[in-house]
Amino acid sequence: MSSDLTAWRGRLAGLVPAAVLEDAQAVARHHAAAVWSCLTEPGDGVAGALISEMGAVEALDVAVRDADTGNAAVDAGRRRWRARWGTVDDAFDRARHVRASLIVPGSAKWPAAVEDLGIHSPHALWTRGDAEALRRDGSALALVGARAATAYGEHVTAELATQLSHRGASIVSGGAYGIDGMAHRACLAAGGVTVAVLAGGVDRAYPAGHADLLGRIAGGPGVVVAEVPCGTAPTKWRFLQRNRLIAALSRATVVVEAGWRSGSLNTAGHAAALGRPLGAVPGPVTSAASAGCHRLLREYDARCITSADDAAELYGGTDTSGSMSPDRTDDRTRVLDALSIRSPRTPEDVALRAGFAPEEARGLLAVLELEGRARRGPDGWRRSASPG
Amino acid sequence: MSSDLTAWRGRLAGLVPAAVLEDAQAVARHHAAAVWSCLTEPGDGVAGALISEMGAVEALDVAVRDADTGNAAVDAGRRRWRARWGTVDDAFDRARHVRASLIVPGSAKWPAAVEDLGIHSPHALWTRGDAEALRRDGSALALVGARAATAYGEHVTAELATQLSHRGASIVSGGAYGIDGMAHRACLAAGGVTVAVLAGGVDRAYPAGHADLLGRIAGGPGVVVAEVPCGTAPTKWRFLQRNRLIAALSRATVVVEAGWRSGSLNTAGHAAALGRPLGAVPGPVTSAASAGCHRLLREYDARCITSADDAAELYGGTDTSGSMSPDRTDDRTRVLDALSIRSPRTPEDVALRAGFAPEEARGLLAVLELEGRARRGPDGWRRSASPG
Repeated sequence: MSSDLTAWRGRLAGLVPAAVLEDAQAVARHHAAAVWSCLTEPGDGVAGALISEMGAVEALDVAVRDADTGNAAVDAGRRRWRARWGTVDDAFDRARHVRASLIVPGSAKWPAAVEDLGIHSPHALWTRGDAEALRRDGSALALVGARAATAYGEHVTAELATQLSHRGASIVSGGAYGIDGMAHRACLAAGGVTVAVLAGGVDRAYPAGHADLLGRIAGGPGVVVAEVPCGTAPTKWRFLQRNRLIAALSRATVVVEAGWRSGSLNTAGHAAALGRPLGAVPGPVTSAASAGCHRLLREYDARCITSADDAAELYGGTDTSGSMSPDRTDDRTRVLDALSIRSPRTPEDVALRAGFAPEEARGLLAVLELEGRARRGPDGWRRSASPG
Repeated sequence: MSSDLTAWRGRLAGLVPAAVLEDAQAVARHHAAAVWSCLTEPGDGVAGALISEMGAVEALDVAVRDADTGNAAVDAGRRRWRARWGTVDDAFDRARHVRASLIVPGSAKWPAAVEDLGIHSPHALWTRGDAEALRRDGSALALVGARAATAYGEHVTAELATQLSHRGASIVSGGAYGIDGMAHRACLAAGGVTVAVLAGGVDRAYPAGHADLLGRIAGGPGVVVAEVPCGTAPTKWRFLQRNRLIAALSRATVVVEAGWRSGSLNTAGHAAALGRPLGAVPGPVTSAASAGCHRLLREYDARCITSADDAAELYGGTDTSGSMSPDRTDDRTRVLDALSIRSPRTPEDVALRAGFAPEEARGLLAVLELEGRARRGPDGWRRSASPG
């Protein structure tokens, strides 16, 4: 075990805060989560359920040991997970090489919002840039759309991203050509915080033509993030799973332009499934690039978004929005971010995650309870299901 | 009285079917309704209530006699109605001069759908062309929009009007420049039936630049219609009231382009108030001409209309639409058109209005009852409130 620990520390060195390396349990937890991200495809519910049941460290022991468990799904999982065992070292090497960071559930910088994905939430996140940007989920707006964007779509995207950045929203998108790229670019130009969620590893620019853009995002205060480890190529499946992550990291999702079968509709579907507000920008009915948006308006009851005001309303109005509301303090936002919808947490745990003294956390939890945004249960505190 | 009758016959000659002139009661009824349309502004609820209570003939006696009634609203009405007494002869003269027709409640050609306006329904309708077009309300779609239309709006209007005409819908609009004019023009070009509802008298082309277009509509099989008598100039109030008539004459209303404060939103509001389906065509959010449509999508829950299919769906699908449904026979449509939501009618009355023998009408009423489209009450039959 102590030789394992030494190896794990070596793998994690530079990827996690130095304090983590001093704590044997934290090392095991970070290492196991990172390894899980190497062994699984995004959204592997069997792994998610196993980890949810026993924690990443013990679940990993089950995954790598020689004996079958007798649970058919887990044993099938073990075979596919162990087939990737040889990729783990390379993933850590590549991450260290590009100075990526690793954040895992329970890390101070872990975005609690992704846990709304339940057993499909990511095991770990690999980042380049300022991972703090991921915890701005109270004010994070996903602006997504087609790669084959029109001049109209790019114009509207630039307007929305600029104006929403000025209002303090962070802009989440997928780093692709077209709408995504314009959303990131306009946000950067406005001095805003933007989050690029990639379908492949953060060590590789995809698309290659966006290497410079992704580099500028990683330069901060934004972040480039992926749940797959470095060295991973994007695949169709990973793009679809990446879309669920965009939706989960954002308080609301707006589709600016999308063809009838665009992947952006997949992101919209994830937002709707998560109960997150969904908006669509209309366009000419003669434009194929707007057909998907009109479909969202008609079939998914998306809000019709024509301006930054409309998009801001998606957050639930000024009374409930995160950084867009003067009456919601950063302290409360930090406590809210430290809560999960799914897993109850003690005030001590919340204090640790949010960086408060326990008595401070208790006071803030009480305020959030009064506001209906946190619930106290027998096992601890949870975030209320409806954002607000 | 008999000298009155002679005078009335003289006024009505040429404006009503010859058979009406043979029937003293019918003469009195047509004449009184026509006079009411001369004495009142559209939507005069005091006149509407009085007529609804005692019938047009007796109500007119109350209006013109010397003694006050003691009812303050009616007596105030009497003063404003009598002030117009001198205009009546001229209105009839002008109507005969342009070979207009007069249809009144109870006429075979009266469109029952307008009675959903209750005491605000028109007292009479003056028409040029084939008034039968007004009774196609089961398949009548209002296509309306801004005078200041863009090339985009006109293109979409032409597409919708053409395709819906080919499917058997009639197109109702306001005869104005822009969207309205294009709707009429495309419907004519497609060989369809179009209804132009004017805010002024049917003897005057408004706008003057549409004299030829309105003439072609009146050439049939469409119709130009107004509730104000000939010689009446359009006013702001009459435009707004005209909009309620467009909505009432149509089974559904679609706004193609409208500015933020366009009069078309008024038509849309009337459609919504009448419980008629409302649609709006989206456009570029950068186009002021689409701002009103986006407002309808956002605030009025209008359906997003991107194609003739979407517009046809507004009728309630193929199961419930009028001429667009192969399983709804013309006979049943005629009986349905002869029913009112408000006033119960005997099978004999329905038979007369729809042009059937009483036993035929009874059979068709029973079918409509089974379909949930007509209701039998103690006083007679009514149309079910929800179109379908």
